[in-house]
Amino acid sequence: MTATALTDFTQRLDKTAEETEALLGELLSDAPMADEIIRPKRLIESMRYSSLGGGKRLRPFLVVESAAVFGVPRRGALMAGAALECIHCYSLIHDDLPAMDNSDLRRGRPTLHKAYDDATAILAGDALLTIAFDIITRDEIHPDAGVRLALTRALARCAGVGGMAGGQILDLAGEGRFGDRDPVDVARVQQMKTGALLRFGCIAGALLGQASPAEYQALDDYGRALGEAFQIADDLLDVEGDAATLGKPAGADAELGKTTFVTQLGIEGAKQRVRDLLARGDAALSIFGAKGDVLRAAAHFVAERKS
Amino acid sequence: MTATALTDFTQRLDKTAEETEALLGELLSDAPMADEIIRPKRLIESMRYSSLGGGKRLRPFLVVESAAVFGVPRRGALMAGAALECIHCYSLIHDDLPAMDNSDLRRGRPTLHKAYDDATAILAGDALLTIAFDIITRDEIHPDAGVRLALTRALARCAGVGGMAGGQILDLAGEGRFGDRDPVDVARVQQMKTGALLRFGCIAGALLGQASPAEYQALDDYGRALGEAFQIADDLLDVEGDAATLGKPAGADAELGKTTFVTQLGIEGAKQRVRDLLARGDAALSIFGAKGDVLRAAAHFVAERKS
Repeated sequence: MTATALTDFTQRLDKTAEETEALLGELLSDAPMADEIIRPKRLIESMRYSSLGGGKRLRPFLVVESAAVFGVPRRGALMAGAALECIHCYSLIHDDLPAMDNSDLRRGRPTLHKAYDDATAILAGDALLTIAFDIITRDEIHPDAGVRLALTRALARCAGVGGMAGGQILDLAGEGRFGDRDPVDVARVQQMKTGALLRFGCIAGALLGQASPAEYQALDDYGRALGEAFQIADDLLDVEGDAATLGKPAGADAELGKTTFVTQLGIEGAKQRVRDLLARGDAALSIFGAKGDVLRAAAHFVAERKS
Repeated sequence: MTATALTDFTQRLDKTAEETEALLGELLSDAPMADEIIRPKRLIESMRYSSLGGGKRLRPFLVVESAAVFGVPRRGALMAGAALECIHCYSLIHDDLPAMDNSDLRRGRPTLHKAYDDATAILAGDALLTIAFDIITRDEIHPDAGVRLALTRALARCAGVGGMAGGQILDLAGEGRFGDRDPVDVARVQQMKTGALLRFGCIAGALLGQASPAEYQALDDYGRALGEAFQIADDLLDVEGDAATLGKPAGADAELGKTTFVTQLGIEGAKQRVRDLLARGDAALSIFGAKGDVLRAAAHFVAERKS
């Protein structure tokens, strides 16, 4: 990207991040909704601790920008993005637990179980996962109930046993957590663990925009390429990045002896793979012409990011 | 209940339990659905370990029987019941974790984290919670997308921060887990922790049956009374039951120094409260005439159960 294009892109990204932050602040208020009794202080505070206060909000951005391709009203896309972000935040909380990755630091702050305790972290994760499925059903998302149902179902599938949660258990198995190390198909593990939610961000726009099958397929292909590029960039950052920029220790993968795209392809091989994926993403977006420019920039941003 | 009525009732309960078991077996197969990649063996097996193989399936029974009041087709109600049961099973898995209640035994078998490990139990719980929101959106539930959306949203709210998950954190707070013991409003805690899902079972029938506001309110009132009666019976069983019938140690509440309905009202006071709640449930159901008989029997069954 040129410096000007990057500035424009970064401004768009920041704007969506700000709006997402404000929306999550409203959605995670302590006021109960219909069918709720009270929202206990400790639980809602811990949910807010892990969902508010920063992050690039890349997943909501993908929802908003893939929806913008179809001229979908921004408010509905932001709501769907907020639901997706709740799922992302829950997954970070549970992944950080001592029984899982045992991480003390996240975005430069103590992880939730360090700031509170394990029980609170488990429940805050559960409650964030659950509230995502409240949010995604809301009338503001889209006037057509069928569209909202399709979003709900796709979100559940991308997040669940056949998506993100399944990817996390494969990742743990690859570390030898359940006995012998299983041979790891890194691409498969990451397609589930990281890729599934990023892909959801992209197909969400197609669902909101009631896209044609060809348009849906284009965003699906783009989302898969972006998801893999994101993870390879992550693996490269773990090798080449530094703790201050990352907000967490670098070299954690190597310390765990993890199989990553970098251990499998080497640094140069991994970088080449990113270039191939970016080309694939660009090609998929060609169906949208200039309307795909922001998504094209998003893939490049993701692949070239420094944290 | 008379002996004959009880036999009839028990047969109905057993039939729904069998059908629910079969349906959960299908839903938790290892074959991926659309938008899923693979269902990893260890994760799906652990989900099955905790959801199959018994239990009274009281919550699905409430969905099926509250829907039957409106003549709703059985298949859709069973599917909604299966979704609810997935949420119930996830909550047991997470509650049993060392960081929460630290239980080794559940339904007479090792708890999931004992049979597998903590990480698998956390993820199996997450995945069961998530798949519930896939199941509840399925076309087989009801032809009207609006009905399915209303069910999805109500399920999320009954299970989340303002319902079951919120109740669990209040319960832990009452044990002094986060510092000083908070004064416990037992009725409030249990209305959230146990009552919210039981109530959902009852209002699910009203939503599926597109009930009038008065009919909805009747099932809502009935569900609240049943939920509280269920918990008081549970507290009484903890004092008066025996481990063999319960499938878990009796007296666990006393050992934890927990505030329960029994410590608060005394044994006789608790029994009187159950009688009052049964009368309230019966009164609420009067709007349905004879069509409410099975639900009336269900409340009595719940209140008088021995395990």
